[in-house]
Amino acid sequence: MDKLTLHEDPRSGNCYKIKLTAALLGLPLELRQYDIMRGDTRTPDFLQNINANGRIPVLQIGDRFLPESNAACWYLAEGTRLVPADRFERADMLRWMFFEQYNHEPNVATLRFWLLFVGEGNLSKFQRDQIMAKRAGGEAALAIMNEHLAKQAWLIGDRVSLADIALYAYTHVSEAGGFRLHDYPAVCAWLDRVAKLEGYVPME
Amino acid sequence: MDKLTLHEDPRSGNCYKIKLTAALLGLPLELRQYDIMRGDTRTPDFLQNINANGRIPVLQIGDRFLPESNAACWYLAEGTRLVPADRFERADMLRWMFFEQYNHEPNVATLRFWLLFVGEGNLSKFQRDQIMAKRAGGEAALAIMNEHLAKQAWLIGDRVSLADIALYAYTHVSEAGGFRLHDYPAVCAWLDRVAKLEGYVPME
Repeated sequence: MDKLTLHEDPRSGNCYKIKLTAALLGLPLELRQYDIMRGDTRTPDFLQNINANGRIPVLQIGDRFLPESNAACWYLAEGTRLVPADRFERADMLRWMFFEQYNHEPNVATLRFWLLFVGEGNLSKFQRDQIMAKRAGGEAALAIMNEHLAKQAWLIGDRVSLADIALYAYTHVSEAGGFRLHDYPAVCAWLDRVAKLEGYVPME
Repeated sequence: MDKLTLHEDPRSGNCYKIKLTAALLGLPLELRQYDIMRGDTRTPDFLQNINANGRIPVLQIGDRFLPESNAACWYLAEGTRLVPADRFERADMLRWMFFEQYNHEPNVATLRFWLLFVGEGNLSKFQRDQIMAKRAGGEAALAIMNEHLAKQAWLIGDRVSLADIALYAYTHVSEAGGFRLHDYPAVCAWLDRVAKLEGYVPME
């Protein structure tokens, strides 16, 4: 495999997903850090050469650049034990990863970002007006996960997959966004299972 | 392959993606229609038996249910000419599909839904207050596509893939959400290329 470089901000759960995937698979990743609060990912150089969408993470593979956290996890893990061998299960894994980006991240991760890094007092009125909807959306996403994880230990089949890694990233730090994880006991038990995986690395 | 049934609302671009993928591949799909405006996907029966997330589309494969439009497209197309054979290109295709669900759909599709189906006069204040941000987000997504498609005919490599189908669905009807497609000439040329594909079916 070509040399792997992760363009990242260590505060980002989307970046952590890729680092956790690489760690579980024993793949070496070189890290290049950016400060998203300072606008490091909106510079002309970054937009031109790294990601026109102005966002991290971007996984650099040799001289090619791959944005979108879940696509980067897929690149690293395709063909490994972290991607199910069964066709339906593989698509179902992607189902949870799209759910993560559509229903979970915009609510659970955004509230953490606003409350922990921006600070509630610094939010715009537009942001403050969205808190209740994002709270409800995040609770709904956590409830769906809890209902599913009450029936099985991992999101897909009987072993860990990228679906678990993708949803673990922002779920395990969601209390910083004001979510109460003990309301979701099956999610809590699953978080413990992920943290005990061989090769696990914590978020910084 | 097991019998394929699509649980759908024909007004939804997310459902159309799956129908277009199936049509391009010559796969028969049985359709079961729901009226999302009437709450058909939030009934106890739907939540219990079809999708706990209360959304369409759901692709039913035999007696198994697969929510999330892009995961359903993946299920249908894996191993076909609509998914690149190269590992990087396959992940890059997923990159555009995650971009679609994160940056494009919540802006471009939501404004179409609000303006075309809900009606501007029926929007809540919370919805009206979001129009400007969704307009800006949608324009940014279309600009990123336009910049990329000015350099190449298809989003990935030199042929159509699921990335094109996923982004075609809501882009080609985005004027109903107030977007001006002629501002994006490379996107317009690409829309024409998609519409000329053998097996293409229009959205109803």
